[in-house]
This record gives sequence, structure tokens and C-alpha cells, in this order.
Amino acid sequence: MLGNFTYKNATKLYFGEDSLNYLNEELPKYGKNVVLIYGGGSIKKNGVYDAVMKILADNGKDVVEDPGVMPNPTSDKLRDGVKIAREHKADLLLAVGGGSCCDYAKAVSVSVNCDEDPWEKYYVRFEEPACEIVPVGCILTMAGTGSEMNAGAVITDRATKQKTGHVFGEEVMPKFSILNPRFTMSLPKRQMVAGIYDIFNHICEQYFSGEDDNVSDDLSEALMKSVIRNSLVAIEDPEDYEARSNIMWAATWALNTLISRGKTTDWMVHMLGQAAGGYTDATHGMTLAAVSLPYYKYILPYGLQKFKRFAVEVWGICPDGKTDEELANAGLAAMEAWMKKLGVTLSLSELGVTEDMIEGIADATFILEGGYKVLTRNEVVKILKESI
Amino acid sequence: MLGNFTYKNATKLYFGEDSLNYLNEELPKYGKNVVLIYGGGSIKKNGVYDAVMKILADNGKDVVEDPGVMPNPTSDKLRDGVKIAREHKADLLLAVGGGSCCDYAKAVSVSVNCDEDPWEKYYVRFEEPACEIVPVGCILTMAGTGSEMNAGAVITDRATKQKTGHVFGEEVMPKFSILNPRFTMSLPKRQMVAGIYDIFNHICEQYFSGEDDNVSDDLSEALMKSVIRNSLVAIEDPEDYEARSNIMWAATWALNTLISRGKTTDWMVHMLGQAAGGYTDATHGMTLAAVSLPYYKYILPYGLQKFKRFAVEVWGICPDGKTDEELANAGLAAMEAWMKKLGVTLSLSELGVTEDMIEGIADATFILEGGYKVLTRNEVVKILKESI
Repeated sequence: MLGNFTYKNATKLYFGEDSLNYLNEELPKYGKNVVLIYGGGSIKKNGVYDAVMKILADNGKDVVEDPGVMPNPTSDKLRDGVKIAREHKADLLLAVGGGSCCDYAKAVSVSVNCDEDPWEKYYVRFEEPACEIVPVGCILTMAGTGSEMNAGAVITDRATKQKTGHVFGEEVMPKFSILNPRFTMSLPKRQMVAGIYDIFNHICEQYFSGEDDNVSDDLSEALMKSVIRNSLVAIEDPEDYEARSNIMWAATWALNTLISRGKTTDWMVHMLGQAAGGYTDATHGMTLAAVSLPYYKYILPYGLQKFKRFAVEVWGICPDGKTDEELANAGLAAMEAWMKKLGVTLSLSELGVTEDMIEGIADATFILEGGYKVLTRNEVVKILKESI
Repeated sequence: MLGNFTYKNATKLYFGEDSLNYLNEELPKYGKNVVLIYGGGSIKKNGVYDAVMKILADNGKDVVEDPGVMPNPTSDKLRDGVKIAREHKADLLLAVGGGSCCDYAKAVSVSVNCDEDPWEKYYVRFEEPACEIVPVGCILTMAGTGSEMNAGAVITDRATKQKTGHVFGEEVMPKFSILNPRFTMSLPKRQMVAGIYDIFNHICEQYFSGEDDNVSDDLSEALMKSVIRNSLVAIEDPEDYEARSNIMWAATWALNTLISRGKTTDWMVHMLGQAAGGYTDATHGMTLAAVSLPYYKYILPYGLQKFKRFAVEVWGICPDGKTDEELANAGLAAMEAWMKKLGVTLSLSELGVTEDMIEGIADATFILEGGYKVLTRNEVVKILKESI
């Protein structure tokens, strides 16, 4: 059954090849002072930066730039960003980039008017914002995290090697997000593929939990099938607009809270992957890929019914003549074959993880309780060793 | 591919057995004057009326009642409702009932502060509201129309026998909706079944259009499968909470704009059904059921690829050894078998339509152009005759 829940998601989305034009509709809603947040500068190569700056100028905005947001935004960077936004008296934080830029913008948004250290407040003590939140808008250049329509923000503390997510309330969601699938096409293939696996795993994390017959699981299967089908087109032809547009839209719905309504969720692959990411600064989607199969193979006996359903509904495997275990395993085998076609990393060692890091990564792994098996520390170590 | 689109839906949803309690959280956001809108009084029998009135009193609201909203709310009733809301200086229109009450509340909301006749303005000239809109909240007692999370409002004009829908902008969507699956359980089985077919057909109307490979179609298939599976449980045991909760939640997502994003839609079954409804005042879902199979059988050759996909993905029919036509027809045959199990009406004559009404109903049928075949008037007559 569907458990009790609330749902509200008021982010306005502009989707398509003409979507950047709608920035002209959004900007007049906010004051003059805009902080433009972006990453390593790829937006200066693909023309997005120039196009955005022109629209900001046309709308008479006073823009200060906050560039250099790294793939895993750090608590130090966050503190610097808060200073920039304060000094500029920011009326709008405009993130142009992938999920890291969106996450970072949201973390800044809840910290500008807050006196406490943001890492300590939101990522150690997990408190909720009590201060005024600066509005955030996103112009997305990479499909993956779903950050454009949710209230999550993952930040990494270099000192403690902790990579931690805080899912805030609906008031922290971006006010608007602009999604142009063409903007994702200049991304290197490895980044595209990491994003695709990130999307897929977001769905898995919400799907592999609970045993109810739940419309949220039907929707999850639909999104997974769409991601799989379109990813196979996109890896052959990254310029295929149909494939890239479907991937981008599926990514948004994979993590905007819809498919978790009324059910429990897992998120242990993210806990394992983020712990490894905190040690290595590796690409998020690749850390998830590296730990996924060892984790799912390990928990399969505890969630046999769902893994059977996954095999049949997502991978189209015929159940005839198969034992429950054979059927469930066939689903994971199909997933593994797809991951190999995608070209995601299937081993943590490729990401720089060495045997001597395992105890530290295990220590940094939050154990969550929503999955089919609550892991012991020994089991975490075992799964990490299988992932090496 | 996904065409260009925008998406925003800010309705706050409270779902579950405890959801009415959240009315206490919403009421303080609005002024003192509440118009309580409801239908024929079934809410007085099942306890919902008393529970709502107590919460309104606890929150110090000044309540005026606007009861008697009929299954197909009329333009005359709408004019009366506007008067009531004006006289009471309504700060909130609170609809308690099914889709008719929600639709009616929205139609009132855009008319209270408007000098023109609402039928003429919104349903003849199809203008958009230029006046201030009174906030609407919904407490849903029937799953079906999706009105709780969209901006649509269907009104019937008795004089001209026109039953017409206006889909307003996002600002007309309810501010909040309370969905308690238990509230739907006191409904007679025939009403439940009509609601279920209404949900299913909303999805069909958006699915049977276009030929792209589109994530919206994957989501549509997921919702259809969930509705079919849970309806078979609900007709055996209407008290099954799991089934009723999934049906209720699927209904919301079947018509809150999500599954039409980036694609064309059809809506001809609704045009045919509503024209018949304008003549007979028959239950909405039943009019849709009566015209569906004749319509889909007629357009099948024009949308063969989609009807094949429907057969395989929604009804699980194995394509092996079947021609395209056989496969597509097998899907419709499975749908027909399901409709018979549900017990929906498969003939317009059961709803009071007689041969002599057909020309009038055909005249009242809006011809839309999003489906696989733009119907001629002769084709409309032919389909209506098949539906008798």
C-alpha cells in the first residue's frame, strides 16, 4: 500500500531547444543582484556562458561571478560562495552547469542569511534552515542528478573526507530550471555515461525497498526502461536529440520525490559510493557504478520478490522455467551487460581506491535502514572489497 | 522526441489515512471567509462533512455552504455559486467531493471577481481570467478526474446541451488537495468503476497520439498497468486499501499534465463522451466507456504502431507469430475483456441515448486534431452509431 505522505514541487521547468529564452520571463521576478555560479569553464566553450550573460545584461542585472564549482563541491568552496553572495547582496543565485552547480547554489542559498558555519549546521548537525533563503534558478548543462527539481545538496568536506547530502524542504527547491537537451551534448562521453548511470541508480535506490504493490514502483520501472532504451541510442550517437531529451527529462523525474511517495527507500549504493568519492574525488556516477553490482548481488536474497519483478518488468526476461533465484539473477546479469555496453566503471580500483583505503571508506559509510538488509560494518567491508 | 514545453504544478498534496488533519495546517494561510462546496450530501452520511466542519470551526472560519453541485455542474449552478462566493467575500473555496465539485470550485474561483457571464467568457469565447482568482482547496472523496491537481473545469450548459471543458493556467490549480483513500470507499461500486475507467481513458487520450519514443508514453504505460492491476483487486474487494490508494494516486498523475509533456494528445473520446453527456446527463466515465471501443477500433489502422506497443507493454501480449494488425487488435480485445470485468457500460443506449439523438450529439462533438485520424462528421456519426 501507499503509506501516508505529502507532495509539493513548485519548480517551474522550461524544457527544449528554445528554453533559454524563458530566462527573460523569470529574471524580472527577482531583484537586480545576481550571482552567476558555474564550474570549470566548459560553458565558456559551448556558448552557454555568452548567451546567459547577454540575457542578464538585457535585463539590467548586476552580475557577480562565482566560478570554479568542482564536481564534488567542498565545504571550503561553500564558505567562499556564501561570502560572495553576501557581499553582492544576492537577489538570485543562478547556477549554470550540472548537478554540482545546482547543489552548491542550494547550499549557498540556505547559508547566506545564516550566522553559523554551513557545514557544521547542515551536514554535521543536519539542522533545517531558519533564515531567509535566497532564490535559486538553474540552467542545466548535464543530465543526471535531478538537482534541478529537488531540494538536495551534496557537499564534501576535504578535511574529514566526508561527502554528505542534505535533503532540505520544498522551499529550497529551485524556483525555475531551464533544461535544453542540446546543452548536454557538448559533454564528454564519459561524463554523459556517468550521468546516465547516476539517473538509473537514483531510481534503483527508491525501487529496491519495500514489498508493496505500489504505483511508485510502476513509475520507477517506466523511467528505468526509458533510460536504458535511450542510453543505448545515446552511446552510439550522442547527438541524437530524441535520446538526449528523454534522458534529460527522465533524470528530473528520477529524483524529484515523485517515485518515492508512499514507500520506503534504500540509498545504500549512494552511501557506499559517496564514501569512496570522499576519499578519491572520483566522478559521482562512476563510484555508484563500481559498488552497485556487488551490493545488489549481496542483498538479492533479502529482496528476492523485487529482484524478480525487476528482471521481468525492466529487463523483459521471461520467467518460464526459471527458479526465483535464477530469474532474479538474470535481471542483475542483464543490468551488468547493459553497464558494460554503457562503459561505466565496474571497479573502485579504476577510480583510485586501494585496499588500504577500505577501512577508512567503511568508517565513512553511513548505514541506512531502508533497504532489504541493514548492513553490518563487516558486510560493508565485504562489499567494498568485492567492488575493488 | 520530446517537443518544447513548460511544466509547473504547485498544488500541495496530502495523501493518506491521516491526511484530513493537514487541513489544520492549510486553513491559517487563508482569510476567515470560507465557502464549503459539496454535492448531493453523501459527505453527510460518511462523516466527512462533520469532520471538515469541526476543523473549520476549530480554525475560527466563517463558513457559508454551497451544496448541491451535480455530477455535471451546470452554467446556472455556476452563476449561483459566483453569487454566494461574492456575497460571502470568500477567501477560500473548499470543495469536498469528487471531480465535479473540484471543477465547479475552479470555475467559481475565476468568476467571482469577473463582471462577465462565466459561461460566455470561459466556455464559449474560451478567454483566460484577467481578474483576481479566489484560492481553491479540495478534499477528494472520489478518484477519477484528476481535478485535484490540474487547472481543468468542465461545465455543462443545459440550454444548449453543451458540456465543455476549459483548461486554465497553472494559477487556477488548487492550492492544496487532501486525498484520503478511505473517503473513496463509501462510493457505490458503479461510481468507483466509472471513476476507474475515467482515469484509464485520461491516460489513453494522452497516449494515443504521436509516434515518438517518449518517456511520457513509458509513464503512461506504467499508470495504465497500475490502474488495471489494482482495479481487478478493487472490484473484488472495494475495501482493499492498497488497491484504492494506488488507484487514487494514479488518478492524480493521469491528468496533472505530466504525461502529456513534450507530445501531442488526442481527447476525441472525451469529445464524443461529453457530447453524449450533454444530452443525457449520464455519468462521465460511463459515456467514455461506451464510445471508447468503437472509436479505438476505427482509428487503429491510422495508429498501428502505437496500438501494437499498447498490446505488448500494457497488456503483456506476446507478439510472436502475430501480424501487426493481429497484435494491435489483441490489445483492444484485452482492453474490452477488462472493461467487461470492470462492469462499465459498453453501449450509449444503456445511458439513455436513442438513435434520434445521434445527429444532435454529432453536432455537439468538437473535432480535435491531435489523434491518429481527424474525424469527419460522417465518421463521428458512424462511431456514435457503433456505440449505441
